[in-house]
Amino acid sequence: MNHENISQAAIDLHRKLRGKIRIQPTKKIENVEDLSLVYTPGVGKVSLLIAENPSLADEFTWRKNAVAIVSDGTAVLGLGDIGPEASLPVLEGKSVIFKQFANIDAVPLALATKDPDEIIRAVAALAPSFGAIQLEDISAPRCFQIERELMDRLDIPVLHDDQHGTAIVVLAGLMNAVRVTDRTLDASKVVVSGVGAAGVAIMRLLKSYAPGVTLVALDSKGVVCSDRDDLTPEKRVLIDDGVLAPATKGDLASALAGADIFIGVSKGGLLTPELVRFMNEKPIVFALANPVPEIMPEEAKAAGVAVLATGRSDFPNQVNNALCYPGLFRGMLDAGVKRVTDEIKIGAARAIAEVVGEPSPEHVIPSIFDERLHKAVAESVKE
Amino acid sequence: MNHENISQAAIDLHRKLRGKIRIQPTKKIENVEDLSLVYTPGVGKVSLLIAENPSLADEFTWRKNAVAIVSDGTAVLGLGDIGPEASLPVLEGKSVIFKQFANIDAVPLALATKDPDEIIRAVAALAPSFGAIQLEDISAPRCFQIERELMDRLDIPVLHDDQHGTAIVVLAGLMNAVRVTDRTLDASKVVVSGVGAAGVAIMRLLKSYAPGVTLVALDSKGVVCSDRDDLTPEKRVLIDDGVLAPATKGDLASALAGADIFIGVSKGGLLTPELVRFMNEKPIVFALANPVPEIMPEEAKAAGVAVLATGRSDFPNQVNNALCYPGLFRGMLDAGVKRVTDEIKIGAARAIAEVVGEPSPEHVIPSIFDERLHKAVAESVKE
Repeated sequence: MNHENISQAAIDLHRKLRGKIRIQPTKKIENVEDLSLVYTPGVGKVSLLIAENPSLADEFTWRKNAVAIVSDGTAVLGLGDIGPEASLPVLEGKSVIFKQFANIDAVPLALATKDPDEIIRAVAALAPSFGAIQLEDISAPRCFQIERELMDRLDIPVLHDDQHGTAIVVLAGLMNAVRVTDRTLDASKVVVSGVGAAGVAIMRLLKSYAPGVTLVALDSKGVVCSDRDDLTPEKRVLIDDGVLAPATKGDLASALAGADIFIGVSKGGLLTPELVRFMNEKPIVFALANPVPEIMPEEAKAAGVAVLATGRSDFPNQVNNALCYPGLFRGMLDAGVKRVTDEIKIGAARAIAEVVGEPSPEHVIPSIFDERLHKAVAESVKE
Repeated sequence: MNHENISQAAIDLHRKLRGKIRIQPTKKIENVEDLSLVYTPGVGKVSLLIAENPSLADEFTWRKNAVAIVSDGTAVLGLGDIGPEASLPVLEGKSVIFKQFANIDAVPLALATKDPDEIIRAVAALAPSFGAIQLEDISAPRCFQIERELMDRLDIPVLHDDQHGTAIVVLAGLMNAVRVTDRTLDASKVVVSGVGAAGVAIMRLLKSYAPGVTLVALDSKGVVCSDRDDLTPEKRVLIDDGVLAPATKGDLASALAGADIFIGVSKGGLLTPELVRFMNEKPIVFALANPVPEIMPEEAKAAGVAVLATGRSDFPNQVNNALCYPGLFRGMLDAGVKRVTDEIKIGAARAIAEVVGEPSPEHVIPSIFDERLHKAVAESVKE
């Protein structure tokens, strides 16, 4: 189907379903006795046991398997700040994926506030009801503060998928891409175009996995470097933390000189074939802008790109967060993880990469339908 | 089963089920095309349509059928302030009932804050995700402020079940009880023991339905009257609004003189047979304290009580909120009601009462398993 057809088919499907999820009881109430067990008076003793030991809620309720998917609608897909209601179809879609691929009960919660402190308070208030929190489609730089403060306040995992889900799948793809092109990440120069939620998380995870990697970032004004005076605090801290290699002012062409890998989380068509020629031999390109990638597959191939990944399902090597989050949350819930660490993220990336088996240029990232995938990611967390 | 057995069976059931509800997708993702309709890229167009017209979320997502059941755990059943986690089994029980009896998708949300303003902000933030809000097990007088402010802020129905669910079922039972005893509510004197969430709501609804009713309320200090200087604002306003009849200081015995109806939402054993004898002929007693009612059935019968209702499933005439809320919310969601009015509540009570058909002393309130019940309540809202 082309894009128009997909849109119309999606509209028709949503109108027909009137909700992609439902609540399903695990126990039918057939008679007064059932009612007295499921509800009052029997439930009273269950509540009292939990009152004595709140962690028993993990045994007696759905909480341990329940994830809140929370958005404020400020960065829905690539569509921007289109409001909380408009995020609901995305959140429901994620709930379907959570259930089908990892048997997790995920509840879409779109919030009617954009104030980071209000969002933090609302999500913190909700924490007793859930085993984990997935933040979704929240714009940068607000997403950084919201995630950080919630991680500090709560003793359940909090993960902003647009950051870390993307970063984990990108790292997985790069693990295989460097293998296919006989490189190591530690010895590679990586240029990242786009310093939003995904860009920042990708760079931090790459640096954590491969400390020797040389990272150069570009925003809409050019190379992010210390002699610029227009940097946001989030960009400046990438320099101060040593995530970015020392760099001077420049544009994409100058940044690409001697680069092994280009990662675009910016805008369609940005990476012209001429620009690719500044890169080293057998360049790796992850062109993740959606729906139009930074470079189209035919152009990339013609320009000598050795491995291309995009965000699209109709091209090979789709970087899709859904490869990661079902298994990642399954593993965290099962293992009782309280905080998502870089070690967990790198383990998940490795599991995704290994599912591919023997990678090839057109197959550095597995399919979401690979039956081993989500179990392997979950297992990686438990290990 | 006796109480001990019920408790143990409930614990066993909860441990086995590990959650009385699950999420169930309405569409299975079989292939890349399904994925592109349920999730990206297809979902993007659906989100854009909702961005243009947020009310389309009612058509394209589960929202129109989704209810948040919100508690802060401060008044869980009759167990008091036992914490949000301990409220979860109750909220899940309500979710099962919502689904089974009214096909509503209700999500348990236990909040980690007791601050009314924080609760109001959190619930208001959640509103875009739900078609209605049911407040549950929130202590008085905080529940009054929380409900009132949320009703003012939100354009979806907000209902505190401990108040209005109870009031509606009590009114339904009284409609039939006065019929059985050849009375009218307008010409009756009603004594209400207990001026918490349920007591206040019962009195307000009775007065709204039958303006001629004579209402006398008692708290732990005796009759609520204007010459007392220890009244809370909530109690004083019952006098100022004319809900309560003019009264002077007194105890239960003095209040019951010439009373037709006693409604207890206070504590077990309060209404002795001796006290019943102060009441008029063929007295009606709703002894709703749980698990021990204000008077036990044998004692009540011996003392001449004509109609007795309790909160217990093992005695006739159980006042159970679950008779009301599934149908009430079904009706409000279907009719697009934005605010719960007294008219809606009285209509629901009438529907519950009429399901009984020809009432008798042991049958003034229908069974929750009556197939006509929930549909009749829903229909009453639509009318």
